[in-house]
Amino acid sequence: MLTFPREEYRARIAKTKQLMQERGMDCLLISQQANMNYLTGYDGWSFYVHQCVIVSLDQEQPIWIGRGMDANGARILSTLDEDNIYEYPDHLVHNTVEHPMHYVAGIIEEKGWGNKTLGVEMDQFYFTHRAYLELEAKLPNIRFVDGNTLVNWVRSVKSDREIEFMKIAGEIAENVMQTAVDSINVGARECDAAAEIARAQYRGTAEHAGDYPAIVPLMMAGEKTKTPHLTWTEKKFAADEAVLLELSGVYRHYHTPIARTIFLGQNPPPIMTETAAVVTEGLAAALEIIKPGIRAEDVEARWREAIAHSSVVKESRLGYSIGINYPPDWGEQTISLRPGDKTLIEPNMCLHLIPGIWYDNVGFEIDASVVVTENGYEHLFDYPIDLVLK
Amino acid sequence: MLTFPREEYRARIAKTKQLMQERGMDCLLISQQANMNYLTGYDGWSFYVHQCVIVSLDQEQPIWIGRGMDANGARILSTLDEDNIYEYPDHLVHNTVEHPMHYVAGIIEEKGWGNKTLGVEMDQFYFTHRAYLELEAKLPNIRFVDGNTLVNWVRSVKSDREIEFMKIAGEIAENVMQTAVDSINVGARECDAAAEIARAQYRGTAEHAGDYPAIVPLMMAGEKTKTPHLTWTEKKFAADEAVLLELSGVYRHYHTPIARTIFLGQNPPPIMTETAAVVTEGLAAALEIIKPGIRAEDVEARWREAIAHSSVVKESRLGYSIGINYPPDWGEQTISLRPGDKTLIEPNMCLHLIPGIWYDNVGFEIDASVVVTENGYEHLFDYPIDLVLK
Repeated sequence: MLTFPREEYRARIAKTKQLMQERGMDCLLISQQANMNYLTGYDGWSFYVHQCVIVSLDQEQPIWIGRGMDANGARILSTLDEDNIYEYPDHLVHNTVEHPMHYVAGIIEEKGWGNKTLGVEMDQFYFTHRAYLELEAKLPNIRFVDGNTLVNWVRSVKSDREIEFMKIAGEIAENVMQTAVDSINVGARECDAAAEIARAQYRGTAEHAGDYPAIVPLMMAGEKTKTPHLTWTEKKFAADEAVLLELSGVYRHYHTPIARTIFLGQNPPPIMTETAAVVTEGLAAALEIIKPGIRAEDVEARWREAIAHSSVVKESRLGYSIGINYPPDWGEQTISLRPGDKTLIEPNMCLHLIPGIWYDNVGFEIDASVVVTENGYEHLFDYPIDLVLK
Repeated sequence: MLTFPREEYRARIAKTKQLMQERGMDCLLISQQANMNYLTGYDGWSFYVHQCVIVSLDQEQPIWIGRGMDANGARILSTLDEDNIYEYPDHLVHNTVEHPMHYVAGIIEEKGWGNKTLGVEMDQFYFTHRAYLELEAKLPNIRFVDGNTLVNWVRSVKSDREIEFMKIAGEIAENVMQTAVDSINVGARECDAAAEIARAQYRGTAEHAGDYPAIVPLMMAGEKTKTPHLTWTEKKFAADEAVLLELSGVYRHYHTPIARTIFLGQNPPPIMTETAAVVTEGLAAALEIIKPGIRAEDVEARWREAIAHSSVVKESRLGYSIGINYPPDWGEQTISLRPGDKTLIEPNMCLHLIPGIWYDNVGFEIDASVVVTENGYEHLFDYPIDLVLK
């Protein structure tokens, strides 16, 4: 049931090991589910309890350590041999005295890694402060170093097969946005529109199943358009109301986000049409320069330059890298399109440009999800870059 | 736009402060989104970046600290006055040098809390090890103590209004399960059934909007029935295949989970009917003794006793406390129905009993979500407790 050929997982592990060596790590303990899946294929909603994958330079395959009831999931879905799947007992779940990391520490000792240098993902959700404390207490001779985003950076350049997945996700994204536009009407309940959007996300296309997004449909109507991360209620859409949508198409956890703004009427306020014009112009300018060899910050600088003639101000980053992910975030935590990010843009990186603007009285969002090609870039979905009037 | 009357938030904060005093805390930094919402009403999908609510004994209202773009969400949805909403600048997001906790530490100093005793939720996802390190580095005179699950325990006994929400969630759960049973048919794609389930979850009822669940629909068919936390693909359901479903109805983030097992045929294997009979009998026995004054472990002991005559073995806990929650878990992380949990059961606690059994060749799941009443318990949803044949 593997999602990718075994060679692809092996190549990912090889790249991870290379970065580990460069940073002086013998072992790397991975808590982020996207990274766990990326390296082993394991894919379960078991990340609400402690679990991890450990990569060690002295072992070909990583090991998976999780709750006993989830081990069969690792057996069915991962590349790992039986010897590399470890189950901790259930009484460790939400136990205030004993902790799953005691079991993990035991395996680390048993493997002879107890006096090595261990990378941990220090700023990943799912690696709590207590997880660290318990490992530290049980492994007095280990040396901890920060392995945060090490695997995320391996993920930032995709294989051709991953790019295919991103394009399938893009196809789903088109369906999802069209479903949203069709479902959002004056008098309809917000929750009913959200329901149709979720349905489109999960269905996918006739050939490919959709998957759950790392972020649920974000839908801000009326007063809520002045902020980006809210969801729906039973409220009905009103005439001459704007609706901001930040959605995604997802295929096997690969995300192609799509964001648009709908105005429920034919006469949006001038501030909205003006903002829309400036933002879409700025987005087009930023896209134009994307190609291998430029730096992440150059894209944002081009955007800022293009909108400098206007009163539009965007303090937050223009975009970020995307790919495989799980809740709570579809962003990769690697590249940020903002001043100071000097990452060299390479072919097969995927970027989400989302110039969202949230004023105190109105908001506007639009986006592009793109893959960097040998000479430029390619859109991951095809949807008009414009304010939607209906 | 408050979900509960202001007095209810005040009562929650008063209980939190009382527990803080008992444990010698001056301030408590809360990272878990369910706890943030519970104390302030703030409800946004912004928990993919660092944010927190701080309760201090010397201040009536908590303070909210989050990313600038999310502050308007706190203004619209929370009980907090403008003075208690703090915005950190966007460049701190996924920044490898500076960190949002530097900003948080600055506010803590400014408030005069820099030499106080600060509780942090040490084992909550969303409070990373690095979050702790950055606070520690910037606040040399503060004393850290573990405030993990302090607010979760306040949540464990619900108000009558919260119980109403749980019952609305239960009504949605009935729709959701019926939708699942109707959609799962031989030849249908798993993803299409998952899509109908999600649609039912988000729609809710004619009066009440559904909300997104803290765990997406879990749906294990065929070989996957030997493990509990997997999701769907484009695979089609086959004749004489079992399908395990772990779902939830959700209303304003209050969860009433519902789990059932479908067999796609009229002749399930004897091991499945026998397991179903034993498990439903054990569940009924365990439910029978639920009332105020017993202990959490008593419920599990009763279950174990009732199934002792059979070969069914369940090593994992029988159930746990439920209520308001956000991804990745709808469990409250307080009460666990298992040996050693001596929590006294009280009226208005809500429990999810889920005797899931996963053998190497077959699995079976069924459940009950209940609220403890003055004299016993009440079901939160009404759905036949049986293996579903179709």
